[in-house]
Amino acid sequence: MTHKHTHTCAIAGMLNIFGDHWTWLVVREAFYGATRFKDFQRNTGISRNILADRLAVLVDEGILEKVDIGTQGTRHEYVLTDKGRSLRPVLTAMTLWGNEHVYGAGKEPVLLVDTKTGLPVQALQPVNSAGRKVTPENITAQPGPGASRATVARLGDADRIE
Amino acid sequence: MTHKHTHTCAIAGMLNIFGDHWTWLVVREAFYGATRFKDFQRNTGISRNILADRLAVLVDEGILEKVDIGTQGTRHEYVLTDKGRSLRPVLTAMTLWGNEHVYGAGKEPVLLVDTKTGLPVQALQPVNSAGRKVTPENITAQPGPGASRATVARLGDADRIE
Repeated sequence: MTHKHTHTCAIAGMLNIFGDHWTWLVVREAFYGATRFKDFQRNTGISRNILADRLAVLVDEGILEKVDIGTQGTRHEYVLTDKGRSLRPVLTAMTLWGNEHVYGAGKEPVLLVDTKTGLPVQALQPVNSAGRKVTPENITAQPGPGASRATVARLGDADRIE
Repeated sequence: MTHKHTHTCAIAGMLNIFGDHWTWLVVREAFYGATRFKDFQRNTGISRNILADRLAVLVDEGILEKVDIGTQGTRHEYVLTDKGRSLRPVLTAMTLWGNEHVYGAGKEPVLLVDTKTGLPVQALQPVNSAGRKVTPENITAQPGPGASRATVARLGDADRIE
């Protein structure tokens, strides 16, 4: 991605880091357990130079940590940091949506399974800061403490996010 | 995005629709209540030709519905379909991550608020098909019914998604 968004928005800020689709696939692989350059490359079909660039961005952003495991020569592993692991809800939400709307029931390429019960993960339930379930229809987007004037003007007349 | 991913993966399939970052911002605006071309344009800073292209893709994909509201001349609204509304967990997860990791506490541009309690939405809790909470550490990615041979090979030795 060449264009960087400058307006204050958490989604735009995140997209400035992620840039294009390749970064998502690299992060997906990290969640699937890939740590080596060659594994990321094999499992995504990404070219070497793009992969090197995206890994460097993810390390710079503190999403992956580059760990030297070389006993001789240079060998590295790329491991998700806490910040990286906190991307899991995003990837889970994307997987659930893609399974349902791109592939459809019975054709899912990958299922996310709860190992404790063997049941598939079906949804992501929003919870508020008191730990209580939130009905999705009750979620509204409101200007936060870091809102720009444009955001305040934008959301002042916004309908519910639903 | 020019490149389309062909491997079977819900995330890649979704990214084939979304393409680049602009599409996400258009969908964000739809969730904030935008329906008119000029509103999408003003609130995203997107150019007219890119916006027209992205709206057409979203209509083609059944994420937005183009509704003719013209009493005279041509006037349209773009409204989220059920398929479009089901993107909410993805957008919510992105907003929560960007708020925490791009902006940080006390600097959030936009807060997602539970109108029933006035409390912010804090997290997305995965639930299984029986409606029970799943501990994120217990989620594993397993080949689904539509898995390719490569996915089966890939995830056969995969560690937990955590």
